[in-house]
Amino acid sequence: MDQTRAIGDIRPTPLPSRVSLVEVGPRDGLQAEAEWIPTATKIDLVNGLIDAGLRHLEVTSFVSPRAVPQLRDAAEVLAGIDRSKGAVLTALVPNAKGAERAASAGIDAMVVFLSASESHNAKNVNRSVRESLDGVRDIVRIATDANIAVFGAIATAFGCPFEGNVPVGGVVDIARAYADLGITSISLGDTTGMATPPIVQERVRALRDRVPEADIALHFHNTRGVGLVCIYAGLQEGVTRFESSVGGLGGCPFAPGATGNICTEDLVYMLDECGIESGVDLQRLIAVSRQAEAAIGRTLAGQVMKAGPRLELHDLNAVSTACG
Amino acid sequence: MDQTRAIGDIRPTPLPSRVSLVEVGPRDGLQAEAEWIPTATKIDLVNGLIDAGLRHLEVTSFVSPRAVPQLRDAAEVLAGIDRSKGAVLTALVPNAKGAERAASAGIDAMVVFLSASESHNAKNVNRSVRESLDGVRDIVRIATDANIAVFGAIATAFGCPFEGNVPVGGVVDIARAYADLGITSISLGDTTGMATPPIVQERVRALRDRVPEADIALHFHNTRGVGLVCIYAGLQEGVTRFESSVGGLGGCPFAPGATGNICTEDLVYMLDECGIESGVDLQRLIAVSRQAEAAIGRTLAGQVMKAGPRLELHDLNAVSTACG
Repeated sequence: MDQTRAIGDIRPTPLPSRVSLVEVGPRDGLQAEAEWIPTATKIDLVNGLIDAGLRHLEVTSFVSPRAVPQLRDAAEVLAGIDRSKGAVLTALVPNAKGAERAASAGIDAMVVFLSASESHNAKNVNRSVRESLDGVRDIVRIATDANIAVFGAIATAFGCPFEGNVPVGGVVDIARAYADLGITSISLGDTTGMATPPIVQERVRALRDRVPEADIALHFHNTRGVGLVCIYAGLQEGVTRFESSVGGLGGCPFAPGATGNICTEDLVYMLDECGIESGVDLQRLIAVSRQAEAAIGRTLAGQVMKAGPRLELHDLNAVSTACG
Repeated sequence: MDQTRAIGDIRPTPLPSRVSLVEVGPRDGLQAEAEWIPTATKIDLVNGLIDAGLRHLEVTSFVSPRAVPQLRDAAEVLAGIDRSKGAVLTALVPNAKGAERAASAGIDAMVVFLSASESHNAKNVNRSVRESLDGVRDIVRIATDANIAVFGAIATAFGCPFEGNVPVGGVVDIARAYADLGITSISLGDTTGMATPPIVQERVRALRDRVPEADIALHFHNTRGVGLVCIYAGLQEGVTRFESSVGGLGGCPFAPGATGNICTEDLVYMLDECGIESGVDLQRLIAVSRQAEAAIGRTLAGQVMKAGPRLELHDLNAVSTACG
């Protein structure tokens, strides 16, 4: 029996029928883990995710090992990943040095990034947005020489924890600058969970209008509980690319106890139930998520990994109460 | 500065401009707590919720004290609640005896309930759905004699943990039977978190069609992470009454570690950000939620109570990293 089948044929009409998921758990999720995670565990995680059907994964970051010690094994992780299924492997690249390392490690695509708010960009990389864009130009040159694609990420695209609301114009300007550099695969990042449905709608529409060549991805955090609602709002705007993290790996550096990235299984569950194809096998993904939880030794934020798919039935006699 | 103001005037067009929230934490949230919660704590919780702006609260249950010992102080709790603000206080009433107790305790409205699936109804109250409906008739008679309103709840309205999918026809039949007994305020309960956007859409439309006099409320659980997405889908269908629980109080009896009721603050946050009035003050509600968490001595599932509203800004110099 297909546990993930949506009921009937009652998909809300405006939703797309197929989406692409970008799994960011191995990079965005693991980067903040204080405890060292062995390289073999990281490789197993990525390979498990590929086995579950994910075909686009941000697997590591070629940042300074001093800045992010957890990802100092970037090249070794990449070398250990199963490339036979044709999954696109990407990595975060902050500067020319990282780009050189990523190219020689054999990455499929480099992800450049900057923040839509100056204060966050300064805090993150100690540069102005303009300086970051200059750096992107250098990375693009290196990637182009090596025949490697470049994707662009815009952090704090829905709000900044230091500045509050981030004007849509600034986000669009950065996307325009990315596109002018040939970067048309552009992700809007909800760095600290400030996205809401109206802001998603506003930004997607503005981007479509001013950067029509952009292939938009949305990257939400569930910090304030509305991460999947923002995905739903994005789907209704026709967006078909979303970034998420297995188990919801990765927290929010600003709010102790708050969650970070939206959870890939919960997203896949929602997509399945809305009749939207993602190519991911939910049951297999849940198994990977539980392995990740065991490896990290901490309860993850994912809900479906705890509750199971909706048609996983319970034994009437095995529960003491049916209240709820 | 208004922390909860939505950006601009970009409310998604199909959403209603105002909704009513039914706070069920004091009943649905507390009923499963094993540790005794003092009556004064319960009263403080309800009064705090009223102070935060909630005007419809399910405050207790007139069930057998043996079945639900935590709510054995139903009458005392009701007697201690501040009635000066005109909040509508309701209580769950399972049978004629409970109805008599509720009436003499001075409840504003009785909530009758049954499940849309036979196995869940049998497990919950040891009766068939037909027998439960007969019982509802007795309660309606007692309530009518005492000039007290009756609301009707339908459990497992989006799926049953024992049977799986629940046919929409059965849900509509029960709603029709409720309406024929004069109960037009009808809540669809997502007892174990099996609701999804397409099922919400299907059920709301069917109910509108077959029971046009029904004033529909939706009661979701976040067991599989999509509780607020279901609310969003309900809003887009024009539903304007939702049940939720402060802090997300109340778990799921079928999945250890899984969450139960959707969280009132997270819902209010979403509504505020979508420009939808609920009459609730988010900051005050967060304070009540944190008090409830302290009283219960366990981390609650609410997200906004941990992260704060989206425009609660952080000091640039007080955080060590801006990654996310």
